[in-house]
Amino acid sequence: MIKADWIAVDWGTTALRAWAMSTSGTLLAEAHSENGMGSLDPDAFEPALLDLISDWLPAGKTRVIACGMVGARQGWIEADYARTPCAPTASILTHAPTTDPRLDVRILPGVCQMSPADVMRGEETQIAGFQALNPDFDGVVVLPGSHTKWVHMSAREIVSFQTVMTGEMFAALSNHTVLRHSVTCDDWDASAFDNAVDESLSRPEKLAAKLFSLRAEGLLNGMTNATAKSRLSGLLIGAEIAACKPYWLGQPVALIGDKKLCALYARALKPQGVDAVMTDATTMTLAGLKAAHATLTE
Amino acid sequence: MIKADWIAVDWGTTALRAWAMSTSGTLLAEAHSENGMGSLDPDAFEPALLDLISDWLPAGKTRVIACGMVGARQGWIEADYARTPCAPTASILTHAPTTDPRLDVRILPGVCQMSPADVMRGEETQIAGFQALNPDFDGVVVLPGSHTKWVHMSAREIVSFQTVMTGEMFAALSNHTVLRHSVTCDDWDASAFDNAVDESLSRPEKLAAKLFSLRAEGLLNGMTNATAKSRLSGLLIGAEIAACKPYWLGQPVALIGDKKLCALYARALKPQGVDAVMTDATTMTLAGLKAAHATLTE
Repeated sequence: MIKADWIAVDWGTTALRAWAMSTSGTLLAEAHSENGMGSLDPDAFEPALLDLISDWLPAGKTRVIACGMVGARQGWIEADYARTPCAPTASILTHAPTTDPRLDVRILPGVCQMSPADVMRGEETQIAGFQALNPDFDGVVVLPGSHTKWVHMSAREIVSFQTVMTGEMFAALSNHTVLRHSVTCDDWDASAFDNAVDESLSRPEKLAAKLFSLRAEGLLNGMTNATAKSRLSGLLIGAEIAACKPYWLGQPVALIGDKKLCALYARALKPQGVDAVMTDATTMTLAGLKAAHATLTE
Repeated sequence: MIKADWIAVDWGTTALRAWAMSTSGTLLAEAHSENGMGSLDPDAFEPALLDLISDWLPAGKTRVIACGMVGARQGWIEADYARTPCAPTASILTHAPTTDPRLDVRILPGVCQMSPADVMRGEETQIAGFQALNPDFDGVVVLPGSHTKWVHMSAREIVSFQTVMTGEMFAALSNHTVLRHSVTCDDWDASAFDNAVDESLSRPEKLAAKLFSLRAEGLLNGMTNATAKSRLSGLLIGAEIAACKPYWLGQPVALIGDKKLCALYARALKPQGVDAVMTDATTMTLAGLKAAHATLTE
C-alpha cells in the first residue's frame, strides 16, 4: 500500500485531482474525482478529499498543499490574494479547517491586480511551476481556458495580467443562443479558423456584426456546422489576441493548458510572428505545488 | 360580439398577437398568448390561432395575414424569403394549411440578403409599416432586440441590412457565464452605460478584455451589480454601433422596438451626432400588416 509523505491537490470548480508525493518529490500515485469546488458546500470539502486520499495517509499528520478555486470565497475557506507585482509562489498559505487528525491542509492564495481589476486562482501555481522549470524566463505566459489568462512575467514576478473569458463566451454562444443550431459538430475546418482569426485581428470592430452571419450563411449558402464552429472559435480567439496585443507584442510567449486549445492559440499567434512554446499543464501544476511545498519545508 | 373583416397576426418565437380589423382598417379588438412559434409543432399552429381568434370569426371565410417566425422552416409552413434589394411589403404570401373552413391564413415572407448572408422575419413588416407612415424616408431603420437589425432603406426598398445579436449575447453572458454573479440587478447606472459605450466605440478591439473585469471589479473594488450590468450593456451596444458605423454614419436613423431598449440605442448614438427618431413598435407592425392586406385586396 502506497503511503504519501505529502499530498499535492489541484482543486478547481469542476474537478479535484490529487497526487501522493514522496519527500524527494517523486510522484507515487494519483487520483481524481468530479467533486469540484462548484458542487460542494463548505462542510463537504473534507469528506470529498478523504474519499480520494485516505488510503495514502500514514499514521500521524500529512501535509496537503492545495491550489485553485478551493480557496475562493465560496470554497472550503477563503485564501487571500497576493497582489501584483508578486512572485507566483506564495509565502502565506491558509489552513483549512479539518476534523480528521491525519490532515494538515493548506491552501495557496490566488493573485489579484487592483487596476485594472483582475483575479486568478490556480493559474499562479502553474506559473510558479513553469518558473521553477524555466527560472530565467522573461516574457508572457498564456493559460488558455474558460477564462484565459495573459500574464507578464519579469524578474521572477507576475508584473501584470489580463483575463479574457473567450472559452466561456464560446460555450455561452454555442449553447445558449441561436448559434446552437449552427455550431453543433465534432468536425473542424482549419482554414475557416485561420481566416476568422485574421478577420478579427485586422478588423476587430467588426466582430459584433459577424456572429449572426454564422447562422445566416448556413441557412442561405450551406455553410457547414464544422465551418461555422471553426469560424466562431477563430473570431473569438482573434478578438482576444487583438485585445491582448500589448501583452504578446515583441515578447517570448509560453502556453500552459489543454493541448488542443493551446495548439489553436499557437496557430493563431504564429502569423503575428509569435512562436509560442507549448508546455504540459499537469507538469506545471505539479511543479508549482512542489515549489510551494519546498517553501514550507525550507 | 365583435366580428372581424380580417385579422392581423404577429407570430414570433415567444409570443402570438392578433388584432381583429375592419375592412376600413379600424382596430376592433386585440388578443395575445404565449404560444410562440418556438414552442409549437406544425400541427399545433391552427389550434393555437383558433384559441385566440375563433370568437372574432363570422360565417364564411376570414382572411388572416401573419408575419414573423411563424413562416420559418420550423414554423407552421415555410414562407420563402424576398431577396434584397426589395420592397419591405411582399407581393407573394404563403397559404398555411388549415382544416377549419372559416380560416384563410396567409404568411408574409421574410427578407434575405445573399452577401453578406443575412435574414429577417417580422422586421420587414414593421419596416413596411414605417414606410407606409413615412413614404419619403431614405435612411436607416434600426430594430433593436435579441437580434438587432440595421436596415438601409432607399427609394422605398431595403437596400441592405445587418443583424447583430447583441440582445441574445447580453442574455447569454448575463445568465450563462460567471458574470451572472455580477449583473443580476434591477437598478441602472446611466453614466456607467455612457462611459462603456464610449470605450467600445473608441477602442473596439479592447472589448474581449473588458468583460471579465466586470466580475473582478466587483470582487476587488466593490463595483455594484447595477454598474456592472449597465457597463455590460454599454460595452455590447457600443461594439454594435462601432461595427455598424457604415450604416448610421451621415444617415437619418429611425428606431423601432421596445421603448426602453430604443432609448438606450438613441442615447448611445447621440454623442456620434445621430438624432434617432423613436417610433411605436406595435403601430409599425399593424401598419405593415395593413399594407400587406391592402396589397392583397387591391
